[in-house]
Amino acid sequence: MTDASDLADRVQSGDLRLYELEDEADAETAAAARRELLERETGADTDALGSFSFDAEHASETAVENLAGGAQLPLGIAGPVAVSGGAADDEFYLPMATTEGALVASVNRGCSAITAAGGANARVTKTGMTRAPVFRVADVTEGAEVAEWAKENYDALKTAAEETTSHGELTDVTPYVVGDNVYLRFRYDTKDAMGMNMATIATEAACEVIEAETPAELVALSGNLCTDKKPAAINAVEGRGRTVTADVTIPRDVVEERFNTTPEAVEEANTRKNLIGSAKAGSLGFNAHAANVVAAVFLATGQDAAQVVEGSNCITTVEAREDGLYASVNLASLEVGTVGGGTKLPTQREALDVLGVRGGGDPAGSNADALAEIIAAGALAGELSLLAALASRHLSSAHEELGR
Amino acid sequence: MTDASDLADRVQSGDLRLYELEDEADAETAAAARRELLERETGADTDALGSFSFDAEHASETAVENLAGGAQLPLGIAGPVAVSGGAADDEFYLPMATTEGALVASVNRGCSAITAAGGANARVTKTGMTRAPVFRVADVTEGAEVAEWAKENYDALKTAAEETTSHGELTDVTPYVVGDNVYLRFRYDTKDAMGMNMATIATEAACEVIEAETPAELVALSGNLCTDKKPAAINAVEGRGRTVTADVTIPRDVVEERFNTTPEAVEEANTRKNLIGSAKAGSLGFNAHAANVVAAVFLATGQDAAQVVEGSNCITTVEAREDGLYASVNLASLEVGTVGGGTKLPTQREALDVLGVRGGGDPAGSNADALAEIIAAGALAGELSLLAALASRHLSSAHEELGR
Amino acid sequence: MTDASDLADRVQSGDLRLYELEDEADAETAAAARRELLERETGADTDALGSFSFDAEHASETAVENLAGGAQLPLGIAGPVAVSGGAADDEFYLPMATTEGALVASVNRGCSAITAAGGANARVTKTGMTRAPVFRVADVTEGAEVAEWAKENYDALKTAAEETTSHGELTDVTPYVVGDNVYLRFRYDTKDAMGMNMATIATEAACEVIEAETPAELVALSGNLCTDKKPAAINAVEGRGRTVTADVTIPRDVVEERFNTTPEAVEEANTRKNLIGSAKAGSLGFNAHAANVVAAVFLATGQDAAQVVEGSNCITTVEAREDGLYASVNLASLEVGTVGGGTKLPTQREALDVLGVRGGGDPAGSNADALAEIIAAGALAGELSLLAALASRHLSSAHEELGR
Amino acid sequence: MTDASDLADRVQSGDLRLYELEDEADAETAAAARRELLERETGADTDALGSFSFDAEHASETAVENLAGGAQLPLGIAGPVAVSGGAADDEFYLPMATTEGALVASVNRGCSAITAAGGANARVTKTGMTRAPVFRVADVTEGAEVAEWAKENYDALKTAAEETTSHGELTDVTPYVVGDNVYLRFRYDTKDAMGMNMATIATEAACEVIEAETPAELVALSGNLCTDKKPAAINAVEGRGRTVTADVTIPRDVVEERFNTTPEAVEEANTRKNLIGSAKAGSLGFNAHAANVVAAVFLATGQDAAQVVEGSNCITTVEAREDGLYASVNLASLEVGTVGGGTKLPTQREALDVLGVRGGGDPAGSNADALAEIIAAGALAGELSLLAALASRHLSSAHEELGR
Repeated sequence: MTDASDLADRVQSGDLRLYELEDEADAETAAAARRELLERETGADTDALGSFSFDAEHASETAVENLAGGAQLPLGIAGPVAVSGGAADDEFYLPMATTEGALVASVNRGCSAITAAGGANARVTKTGMTRAPVFRVADVTEGAEVAEWAKENYDALKTAAEETTSHGELTDVTPYVVGDNVYLRFRYDTKDAMGMNMATIATEAACEVIEAETPAELVALSGNLCTDKKPAAINAVEGRGRTVTADVTIPRDVVEERFNTTPEAVEEANTRKNLIGSAKAGSLGFNAHAANVVAAVFLATGQDAAQVVEGSNCITTVEAREDGLYASVNLASLEVGTVGGGTKLPTQREALDVLGVRGGGDPAGSNADALAEIIAAGALAGELSLLAALASRHLSSAHEELGR
Repeated sequence: MTDASDLADRVQSGDLRLYELEDEADAETAAAARRELLERETGADTDALGSFSFDAEHASETAVENLAGGAQLPLGIAGPVAVSGGAADDEFYLPMATTEGALVASVNRGCSAITAAGGANARVTKTGMTRAPVFRVADVTEGAEVAEWAKENYDALKTAAEETTSHGELTDVTPYVVGDNVYLRFRYDTKDAMGMNMATIATEAACEVIEAETPAELVALSGNLCTDKKPAAINAVEGRGRTVTADVTIPRDVVEERFNTTPEAVEEANTRKNLIGSAKAGSLGFNAHAANVVAAVFLATGQDAAQVVEGSNCITTVEAREDGLYASVNLASLEVGTVGGGTKLPTQREALDVLGVRGGGDPAGSNADALAEIIAAGALAGELSLLAALASRHLSSAHEELGR
Repeated sequence: MTDASDLADRVQSGDLRLYELEDEADAETAAAARRELLERETGADTDALGSFSFDAEHASETAVENLAGGAQLPLGIAGPVAVSGGAADDEFYLPMATTEGALVASVNRGCSAITAAGGANARVTKTGMTRAPVFRVADVTEGAEVAEWAKENYDALKTAAEETTSHGELTDVTPYVVGDNVYLRFRYDTKDAMGMNMATIATEAACEVIEAETPAELVALSGNLCTDKKPAAINAVEGRGRTVTADVTIPRDVVEERFNTTPEAVEEANTRKNLIGSAKAGSLGFNAHAANVVAAVFLATGQDAAQVVEGSNCITTVEAREDGLYASVNLASLEVGTVGGGTKLPTQREALDVLGVRGGGDPAGSNADALAEIIAAGALAGELSLLAALASRHLSSAHEELGR
Repeated sequence: MTDASDLADRVQSGDLRLYELEDEADAETAAAARRELLERETGADTDALGSFSFDAEHASETAVENLAGGAQLPLGIAGPVAVSGGAADDEFYLPMATTEGALVASVNRGCSAITAAGGANARVTKTGMTRAPVFRVADVTEGAEVAEWAKENYDALKTAAEETTSHGELTDVTPYVVGDNVYLRFRYDTKDAMGMNMATIATEAACEVIEAETPAELVALSGNLCTDKKPAAINAVEGRGRTVTADVTIPRDVVEERFNTTPEAVEEANTRKNLIGSAKAGSLGFNAHAANVVAAVFLATGQDAAQVVEGSNCITTVEAREDGLYASVNLASLEVGTVGGGTKLPTQREALDVLGVRGGGDPAGSNADALAEIIAAGALAGELSLLAALASRHLSSAHEELGR
């Protein structure tokens, strides 16, 4: 690999910058040169990193800069899980990319119980990708005026925003005034796209109108009221991406046979751990491990891994009933897409095909809705399985005590 | 691939369960059978999923169940970034696995400015993986007694806990009484391991002592005051894993040349967006996009992707000073390890070798400390670069208005 | 006081219940009997409690049950503070009932600086008292339908709600689905009333429509998404009662003369304490002591003391500028009224008259708006004074170090 | 009242400042002059404000500046409520100063049920008033050193702090490093005093040692990690003042007779409203209206009204059991004292005497502990009564539907 070696030389000699390699060679060679450089500088092997099957050119143009290779994660499948959703209505095998032993097995057990119970209900109850620029104003008087202006000129903002996109629709602009700051939270229906880029570009166009028509000056296109990739109550309360909820009632005998516990014991574990424990922890996540399922499916299907943060804003509820165990999960801010971004990579495409939700849906948005509902069902499976394991452990030790 | 095909037949006919395939064939064949099954049931191609270079046997024993293949993510490198830390003291190339275009380029720009400024300081200021079981007690009187008991019998708990581990050390047990629930938050120094498993097993042993010696009954080994994989103030305040902080002062001319903006403009963007905006959002994350760096390095180096949630508990501060731009990031709960879990996979091993932190450190814990400090420096680079881009955009538009 | 003595006898003998005294005597005598009883049972004197000047009959009918006497708090006045608000436009003496020494003096100093600077701007940027009942539904499918129904039948809900009130107007209903729970957050313009009762009664009427027309069953008229008298991000983000913000720019020389410090030092104190410190504390209150002013004016003017909780959701911003010190306070959820409740008591009426905002305003709502703006200006005064004291202490010690 | 009139003239003419009146006359006359001034300037009557029975001199020296009069609140009594606490062990009449109609009646009903059930258990499980100064350091390296220094020199800090107080004891110093800020959270056992002043003075002395011995420079004696009078997770998690919890099991027949509902219905209301509803609201208060009881008893007994904010950090739990209704309240940060501050005022002294907890306890701290336990029992009564009312309403409507 002479070329790569030469390029590595030139970087080491200071003749080239690390990010200029694609100007000198194709993406594959550039990546090889970076691996060569890493080997020289750090002594590390890079053979495994060099063994990838996606197209280097495409990856370096759309997903990553300074491409050096590929990271590989094992991918397991759980399910099938039956889902009766607003968009998803079938049995699904859940692709999960993870390195946490026992996770797929646990979710698989939950999927099996859900399917035995006739499947999970699921619904997207709110949709909208948000972007919230922050503007500087002279004072609160001007701030109040700008906020008022934004409400009165919603149509103008909508026109400007929607001119930048063929699919997205602006659905709301909510103003927040804090001293000499005005934050405007734009919400978009971005259909099957996760929509962060679409929302950013559209909001930038709307901001130009605001700066032209009002005294407000844009400080940052994101003023953190969006809120992207940070734990934030605004997302947990008002939602971001998809707000999706799923539930199931597992018959009492299924709980006992498959989980070796009772609905009452599962409810107790949920109440003491997920509700009261999370309350005491000052948490926005009232669940056992929803983020595990969100992360694993996100990685498998090309979602943004950093948005696992918002995906963890989940409330799990459990109620023991005469006829069995009612359980639900409620993901306030699940940001998913089936077009764009990482969804175009080879393994990710295949995983989306496994779920039958790759690309644009018909109607538009229905594929991303379905993906959200499936993830919710998977999270429900994970919650049930873990809570039941806790309850069962407890139950068996209780049995031991009683059985003597 | 007859074997795989036969196995797929047997699963479809109901003769075998999805998770029983490893009983009938080696891991590689079992994975092939699952892909065959997925192709038949969903019509999806699975060629890319089947193209992986890790050892199927090892992966299915340690990282995933129902192995079907591998997910691949492009990996880029940023840096080098100079870090002067308590454990890390060198220049580092940062491996980042991501599908978010522009991220590596942005972090790279920040690394370059940090290195030009002489490097980032970094320090781990608190260490400890936590596990917090919840117990049921009769009432608050008994709850208060159990809490008292736990404090008085700390040595017994420590002995029981540490018998389960050759490396881990129990460093604290903090009780919380909520009605008839007692939560005990165990904190461990888990050295170079992320430590969740170690902490769980050790805590389980301690719980047996508690159940034997007190009337408290264990309900769940995790009572959510840990808090694992959920956004929670207890982690943001008290830390979990590593609490790590990094800072740098970028000389004024470097800010102007590399970022095309001023320290004052960057400070303003940080204050209005990261501090005031996040405050208004009810957030635990006062940063621009620290989770992006955390997620990308986590994926590259075999960390738990779901723990990006806690990794996003980051406060970024910026101050314009006469001599330049002071900036810091403060990650309250960065859960990292350089041994165990996903760190054993091939690409992940190589990425850790690129950083020079694979395996157990000398002294024990120093490799994981170093990894935390490097990630903090990377997050600092990402914050600087994004904030500067916001400030620069603003500055240029300000220049236009002024007519130059 | 034979009557009272006899009544106390009868309570002690079990012949009468504590709350039945008003059936046997007038309110004044009943209160005397309770004091007599307290003296006998506890040995406490009750003379001071018995010395009150409000009308016992009226108080026991509108404000308190089991009336035994009056509590007295010293009331001081700060100001005058000049306010240029949307509703308040004058100089105001601020009545403050408190037992915290130095508080009134501190606020007074801040008022003086604000007035010297030409007065504070103030604006109510959002208005609305909320009530959020929780309903039980069969499952998430039904939950999504009920949420949809509520949006589609907003007019019917508005009609039902507004039939119960001559002043209030329903302005919004926002649904939240969590498993088999549906929360509907009703928002009302309650004009000059704080409006909790009005909102509750109106919402109850709307709930009857919902129960009649949908399968949802009401569990509780308040489902805690209101949120009343609890710290909650939903209030900090979306507001409750009045969202009000005030600001001022204090000229540099005024800062130096009156506060003996510099704008830069005040900004630093605010950033490190109110912004970064509160961020690290996991707080919803990014201020120094806004609750002090809110509490003292609330007590003086007959507001609900428990709503000081929401009143503390305040963000304080400070910026040192060339021309001086810009400062703002932003109270997200200040719940005030100038009619009803405690505003009818004698000392409270007088305090409202001192502010010129007693009773219904013209236009309706303007008195409560003005009260909110005045409290915001008072809170701003309190913030400025305390931050300046911190900055000044620091400055003087800095001076000492410099040998002056 | 010639003197007062003359003084008012002089203020109006600009000859005297509002706060200088006590230099010219006794406190009573000064207050009269301020009322005269208010009447002239605003046209308000001030007769009721002028009718107070506390000593003007004492009040203006200890509790308020610019004294103008007194505010009066009606005070009712609830109870008796039986409490079996660590410090309180008796039946107590609860003095409540409030203007919220129906509150005392509701709490009274709850007290009655608790007492019928044999009384509430109560325990203070953690004690400590906190103060957390913020220091500026050069960078994170120095910050880590200062944090380490504070841990190693705890004894020196303790000595310095405790020299300022005859009663208080320093029990903990916890450091938090955020960039170039170091926060040190000092915790004190302040015995029967609420302790804010004691903690502040003691911390100031310790800060002098820190500034002398380390490069850290004090920016503010309170860095908001205390956290005083702001909603903050650090208080909800780690406690401030007293962490107190109370519970009771109400026999099933008592629930049915007194509350006209069932344990199951009360549990359901608590779960859907206080646990799940509060979770969705992003709240730190998982209760129905604990702040109402906290506020009313605080006002009656001379506590700091602004600290109702922290007093609302309460989690209420309810469980329906075979033998009845288990309920608990858990107040994480109840800041109470029985000496100092407002506890010296006449009506407040009497209210403390009614509870038998005025002044210093034996052992020291036991009176404040008892007050905390009594308030917790009162809050429990309030929670039970309101939840039962919700459940009962629901039950009766359910009965109507069933045609009974």
